[in-house]
Amino acid sequence: MPVATIEWKNGKVRMIDQTRLPLETVYLECADAGEVWHAIKRLSVRGAPALGVAGGYGVCVGVQHSRAKNYAEFKKEVDHVADYLAAARPTAVNLSWATQRMKRVVAENAGLSVAGIKKKLLEEAHAIFEEDRKMCRQIGEHMLPLLKDGATVLTHCNAGGLATSDYGTALSGIFKASEKGMNIHVYADETRPLLQGARLTTWELMQAGIDVTLICDNMAAHVMKEKKIDCVIVGADRIAANGDTANKIGTYYLALAARVHRIPFYIAAPSSTLDLSIATGKEIPIEERAEEEITEGFGRRTAPKGVKVYNPAFDVTPHELITAIVTEKGILRPPYRESLRKSVEK
Amino acid sequence: MPVATIEWKNGKVRMIDQTRLPLETVYLECADAGEVWHAIKRLSVRGAPALGVAGGYGVCVGVQHSRAKNYAEFKKEVDHVADYLAAARPTAVNLSWATQRMKRVVAENAGLSVAGIKKKLLEEAHAIFEEDRKMCRQIGEHMLPLLKDGATVLTHCNAGGLATSDYGTALSGIFKASEKGMNIHVYADETRPLLQGARLTTWELMQAGIDVTLICDNMAAHVMKEKKIDCVIVGADRIAANGDTANKIGTYYLALAARVHRIPFYIAAPSSTLDLSIATGKEIPIEERAEEEITEGFGRRTAPKGVKVYNPAFDVTPHELITAIVTEKGILRPPYRESLRKSVEK
Repeated sequence: MPVATIEWKNGKVRMIDQTRLPLETVYLECADAGEVWHAIKRLSVRGAPALGVAGGYGVCVGVQHSRAKNYAEFKKEVDHVADYLAAARPTAVNLSWATQRMKRVVAENAGLSVAGIKKKLLEEAHAIFEEDRKMCRQIGEHMLPLLKDGATVLTHCNAGGLATSDYGTALSGIFKASEKGMNIHVYADETRPLLQGARLTTWELMQAGIDVTLICDNMAAHVMKEKKIDCVIVGADRIAANGDTANKIGTYYLALAARVHRIPFYIAAPSSTLDLSIATGKEIPIEERAEEEITEGFGRRTAPKGVKVYNPAFDVTPHELITAIVTEKGILRPPYRESLRKSVEK
Repeated sequence: MPVATIEWKNGKVRMIDQTRLPLETVYLECADAGEVWHAIKRLSVRGAPALGVAGGYGVCVGVQHSRAKNYAEFKKEVDHVADYLAAARPTAVNLSWATQRMKRVVAENAGLSVAGIKKKLLEEAHAIFEEDRKMCRQIGEHMLPLLKDGATVLTHCNAGGLATSDYGTALSGIFKASEKGMNIHVYADETRPLLQGARLTTWELMQAGIDVTLICDNMAAHVMKEKKIDCVIVGADRIAANGDTANKIGTYYLALAARVHRIPFYIAAPSSTLDLSIATGKEIPIEERAEEEITEGFGRRTAPKGVKVYNPAFDVTPHELITAIVTEKGILRPPYRESLRKSVEK
């Protein structure tokens, strides 16, 4: 059972302060919108689905003690709090999507009392939380037939519970299998430059009592050759209509090595990641990030001043290297152009 | 032209303090054996060939002001200094090999005056230096036909001048080509966990005015796909009779990716690296190193306390993935069982 990353508890938004992980497990209890705003701003909460949940509960905590005397006053307050929270990370799509959803609840319930709308708002925030939770668990359920007792899984980056409100995506099947009493071993790539694997994935799995071994990214092929790796499971940032998948840099490298060693390579991602408007991975732009992530990634400079750096955040794994894509709707197999389209039409 | 890593200058052993790289270029001038011993001990000088040179010159600097009145006294002094230096890093084969060689000079010249033996010792130390220098340059010369003007080379770890007394092995061809006015671009893997690529390879190439771009290890396959990589060149720690090659962890991963992208993959190493007593790479033991190299590699803990870690220092690249092995004797091609044997018999 993964830890609760973010939840509504006793009228507060309770969340793990991810900036303190993995060395300290500190929970923040945000009692007003300002505290949620700061938690989002300083990345105490991160990951698209988790940010949506923070936005929903953030609006609730921000207006729960409202003294608004009528609908107009209350609506103004909610709109203000929602926009304020969304501005904490303007590029986070899920955050603004969630706060918009909260504003809509107010707009659609003009006939209710302020107390009645407050109740509806909390229901909506719970719904955002529950939808994500359900999606994560469904991905895990669908992954189960792909895992056998005693299996050893290799994963990259962090597509676990900390980025969502529950089981995560790539790690969901592992949590599910473990819950069912299956014995699963995990090798976690540290995932340079930001070390999400070393910092977050190992921590999450250890919390759940799952056997995990940390390796450097460049050890993965050697581990595939020397140890019994049964499958690779990673998340996705964007999946094109033909199945080409953008994910954290290093994913393509892993997929190549998995193919050579005849190891199944699985993508686990919500169907909201499918972007059928894009024909192939060639159309996915690759974000390049700051040089300092590589040269000063640990608070200490580890490369010469003035060195040229190339720091792509993602790469694209061609569909031919992907054994299956698992979404909350099921296991999708090649040819992906067909299976992905059908899954969206469902 | 690479920088002078270690040299004999004005009766002192002058060396770059590698512990200060890449942020500061500080030279140590060791005026007695104790200073050389400390430089070796604290890894200011590292790399098998460079340690051999340090051992040779270290003996010279240690006995140059000797007041020994006869052969027996002087021999005792040399033996003492040589054994003392060798003990600074007892597992460094080249260091004890070089100090033994210095002791032998004394043993074989009992007929000479103390002043005469001192001269012979300095000649021997210069010979150790020059043999390494020549070997490095020959490897570079033999690499030249494999590089064309404008080529982009990907390399891993540091097999450059800092580990030797001159051009290094993997980087030697690049230095040579650059000297000849060729325009060579290099992508350098940072090489976790110890970051030799980020710290040393980039620094050496920048010193020589060669265009170098630093990447994380997990970016190599993406770079091969997106950028025009003409070849991969890496060093070697040990080469079996069939050509299977042990080198820094991550080398096998690179060789796989190079094969998939149809990029030539070259090993550059002195023929002393060939170990024909070993039939295949399966017989090469893989050293596992301390967990802290991965979990606390940057002076700061970046993984949960108690996490399991797998930290193999090397991997083995099967000979099928190696396009050619370049030694000081020439370019060796498959089938390696034959070409390696012939090269040793030369």
